[in-house]
Amino acid sequence: PKSIRVSTGAPHLANPPTVIVMVGLPARGKTYMSKKLTRYLNWIGMPTKVFNVGEYRREAVKNYSSYDFFKADNESAVKIRQQCALAALRDVESYLTEEGGQVAVFDATNTTRERRDMILDFGSENGFKIFFIESVCDDPSVIATNIMEVKVSCPDYQDCNKTDAMEDFHKRIECYRVHYEPLDPDQYDRSLSFIKVIDVGRRFLVNRIQDHVQSKIVYYLMNIHVQPRVIYLCRHGESMHNLQGRLGGDSGLSPRGRKFSGALSMFVKEQNLTDLKVWTNQMCCSIQTAESLGVPYEQWKALNEIDAGVCEEMTYDEVKEKYPEEFALRDQDKYYYRYPTGESYQDLVQRVEPVIMELERQENVLVICHQAVMRCLLAYFLDKSAEEMPYLKCPLHTVLKLTPIAYGCKVESISLNVEAVNTHRERPEEMKKNSGTLIRRNSVTPLTSPEPNIKKPRIDGLDEPLQEMPMSLCTPSHLALAGQVSVSLALSLSLSLSLSLSLAFSLSLSRFLSLSLQCSILCLAHSPSKWYTHMSQLSQGLKTLLYPVSSPSSTLTEVDLTGDINKGL
Amino acid sequence: PKSIRVSTGAPHLANPPTVIVMVGLPARGKTYMSKKLTRYLNWIGMPTKVFNVGEYRREAVKNYSSYDFFKADNESAVKIRQQCALAALRDVESYLTEEGGQVAVFDATNTTRERRDMILDFGSENGFKIFFIESVCDDPSVIATNIMEVKVSCPDYQDCNKTDAMEDFHKRIECYRVHYEPLDPDQYDRSLSFIKVIDVGRRFLVNRIQDHVQSKIVYYLMNIHVQPRVIYLCRHGESMHNLQGRLGGDSGLSPRGRKFSGALSMFVKEQNLTDLKVWTNQMCCSIQTAESLGVPYEQWKALNEIDAGVCEEMTYDEVKEKYPEEFALRDQDKYYYRYPTGESYQDLVQRVEPVIMELERQENVLVICHQAVMRCLLAYFLDKSAEEMPYLKCPLHTVLKLTPIAYGCKVESISLNVEAVNTHRERPEEMKKNSGTLIRRNSVTPLTSPEPNIKKPRIDGLDEPLQEMPMSLCTPSHLALAGQVSVSLALSLSLSLSLSLSLAFSLSLSRFLSLSLQCSILCLAHSPSKWYTHMSQLSQGLKTLLYPVSSPSSTLTEVDLTGDINKGL
Repeated sequence: PKSIRVSTGAPHLANPPTVIVMVGLPARGKTYMSKKLTRYLNWIGMPTKVFNVGEYRREAVKNYSSYDFFKADNESAVKIRQQCALAALRDVESYLTEEGGQVAVFDATNTTRERRDMILDFGSENGFKIFFIESVCDDPSVIATNIMEVKVSCPDYQDCNKTDAMEDFHKRIECYRVHYEPLDPDQYDRSLSFIKVIDVGRRFLVNRIQDHVQSKIVYYLMNIHVQPRVIYLCRHGESMHNLQGRLGGDSGLSPRGRKFSGALSMFVKEQNLTDLKVWTNQMCCSIQTAESLGVPYEQWKALNEIDAGVCEEMTYDEVKEKYPEEFALRDQDKYYYRYPTGESYQDLVQRVEPVIMELERQENVLVICHQAVMRCLLAYFLDKSAEEMPYLKCPLHTVLKLTPIAYGCKVESISLNVEAVNTHRERPEEMKKNSGTLIRRNSVTPLTSPEPNIKKPRIDGLDEPLQEMPMSLCTPSHLALAGQVSVSLALSLSLSLSLSLSLAFSLSLSRFLSLSLQCSILCLAHSPSKWYTHMSQLSQGLKTLLYPVSSPSSTLTEVDLTGDINKGL
Repeated sequence: PKSIRVSTGAPHLANPPTVIVMVGLPARGKTYMSKKLTRYLNWIGMPTKVFNVGEYRREAVKNYSSYDFFKADNESAVKIRQQCALAALRDVESYLTEEGGQVAVFDATNTTRERRDMILDFGSENGFKIFFIESVCDDPSVIATNIMEVKVSCPDYQDCNKTDAMEDFHKRIECYRVHYEPLDPDQYDRSLSFIKVIDVGRRFLVNRIQDHVQSKIVYYLMNIHVQPRVIYLCRHGESMHNLQGRLGGDSGLSPRGRKFSGALSMFVKEQNLTDLKVWTNQMCCSIQTAESLGVPYEQWKALNEIDAGVCEEMTYDEVKEKYPEEFALRDQDKYYYRYPTGESYQDLVQRVEPVIMELERQENVLVICHQAVMRCLLAYFLDKSAEEMPYLKCPLHTVLKLTPIAYGCKVESISLNVEAVNTHRERPEEMKKNSGTLIRRNSVTPLTSPEPNIKKPRIDGLDEPLQEMPMSLCTPSHLALAGQVSVSLALSLSLSLSLSLSLAFSLSLSRFLSLSLQCSILCLAHSPSKWYTHMSQLSQGLKTLLYPVSSPSSTLTEVDLTGDINKGL
């Protein structure tokens, strides 16, 4: 019926949830966009989750044989695929209606009108807004790269050589191509809300944007690119305030901080990037650090450190003494806690969002900022939850090198071997147990009257109450959580080892650790029971690392994986 | 030649200027978009100017007879039109190379490939980036509305009735349609950077965005709409800090402030808008004001008042005593002046930009904020320069009602008749004379080393030095300047009169003033010599205002005109 073809939600809901429906042939970067967009939306505070129908299919059919499965005349397979799509939609429904989700990304080919009409029916029954993202690309080299990077290593082809996998995948694409009906902006689909992404962002067609969320999504998709690039994040050199353990302020560099500036300048030269952009904030110690590089740089006020309000320039001990209640509240929920007359980490996310957007646009960039802002940026790239963000380790005099790979981002931590004070403060153990207690969240509740029913705290244009967010942000998926556990495990392992072992061989050690880590994450994700076996293999492997290779200026490299990069390993 | 058809600037300039080239048949909203976009870009700090070829043509050919002028076989007219285009391009060139402009909007039909190729040549010779904005619309009702609103009253038809004007204009459109070659994303124009705006924003086609500026422009065009709507701006009710003359802080409402909240609630009800959204900042007095409305509202941290840094909660006298140098610096250049550890008006613009973007998306909105932020928002809607912004009059207990009309925005100032302190502080007279002296601009210069040549202060992603901006912002055109002079003249006239005359008749007075004001602005713009005659007519008119009509809760209404709305008057 015609009414269903309008992709609006129920009229009486001010901000109904959104289902983003991917459309396109296989190997058009749908999953890449799904995951990247989901990471962004979660980071800006909209609980979002990907529902990949391929994963449901692999769950239903354990042993993939060949592209025959995707032929339109393979009746039993068609039925299975239909049921997988329905199962995924049921999960979308419960995510958006029961689990506090605001956006679900339905990641499948959805290449036929019949399938898309079914999804529109589903949306209109549940009062969800439907927004389509179609990826169109006919450049054979782009498709081949995509297949090589993420498809031949996918579980479907685990027992298959790359050439055969490539060939089978091309045939799989042809199965879909026969019945592919692209979105038609002129007639059939003219009333729908969608964006067509053409040739990896060379061109876009945008139809009937309905709301703030869709407008943000479109803007984001227009700014991301897939060129190889590197982002370096580091803090200013150690400042006088760091030495005194004081929060905020705007002091100059300590002697060791100046030494780091020199080391950073050397490091940047070694990286040998002709087009590296340097961004700093507008605070004295960052500017001094940037100055020593002897290259042009840009100052962003948006990168200034978190405003500690009444606690500016105090030490933690002074805060504890003068504002004991504030001190305790911050430990209870550091992400939402806002310093009186200052900012919270949540505020920071809103503030640095334009920087993230511009970072996505750029290629090689070095960002010199402060601890809290660096955590904010890092959480975006590594898909860390709101709960983890304020505790991410960003030590002084250490450069984090971020390289986008497949669906995630590789991070290498490079200490420049200049000593500095440790400014990291762990969440107290007793607080970890107490989480869940009712606390004052002063990012949300500067309300003066007692009727909470008509108050709408602002989360970036949405009317949803904030209270639901932390939960869903903390557990985007079991997979991610499991990955994070083993990351921090391996991280502390490598850290303690690097102290006791000679610097010279810690690089190769950490390379080994990284690989082992990948294995262990993936193993944990796919078969938790095998995880312990892998961990014992890991400790076995340590013994083989007795003869070190050469070491550059870096002392420690570790790899973090966001998303499940090489499912096939 | 093929190389010219790529719309990139000279490769060695990091941020070459941009020429935005409008494309489309007459009455497709090109001038509307040109003016609106220019206002936005100027406001975010990119000096931008519109070059309307139609104005050059009207200058060259004083007496327009009929659409015959636009026929393709009218050789002499074709030559004139060609020369007008070239004259406009020469002015574009000098604006971008000599006058500090960053963006020029070339507002003409540019419907043929020949014309566009000529412009591409021009861009490539000068190292300007070229970005096309094509407006495509075939909805007869939209076109008819557009013609009625802005075309039949244009100077071409000043001696013509509306029906005849309408008919002639339709024939003029047909003259262009014959040779119209739309941008072709698939073949001929595939290498160019452009956006096609289809059916007034229902659909967009975006091709090859090159940089931050183009990305911003596209995002902006996707968010604006032409639905009728009203924006109300007001400040919180008078606060305890207002009473004491203190800056910033977060105090509650005074008794008169609470009275205003009640009056505002009444006012909102009287406006009778079912879908009015209410936005506040996160400060106590604004929230108290919003609470009294008894409707849902959203809090934006981005709307919080300017941070006065070390001067927070001081009175002006205390600032003068404690920080005499800062006090003087702020008077010298209030827009760029940043309070130590606080913010400047320039910082505010960056901070509230997302609010402006969301305001453009929405329909009816009431924004309750503080003085400096309100000035910032108002400057956007009224196209005020950076120099004027910090001195815009935004008294307490007064609602400004903004209604978009034609190419500008009508503003009515509605006092709710609750007394309040005056928090406005004029720029001291002696400072007005001193402008141009060399001063510390601490928004721009938190630099620690003395080589200014490699320093790039950040203005929203651009590398241009800030120093050039205020000048070009102050004089977007002689027309605008002239308008502002007479606005403030009439404003002070009406203010002083409303004090001495009874409230009851000031409404009709101000209505009269508004009309007179329109006349005087337009007159000044078109024939300055006649301006004095008009001003004397204005004072004549005052004498006729002896018998007042009824007055609602408002005491003063004045109309400000941005842009030249009714050229034909």
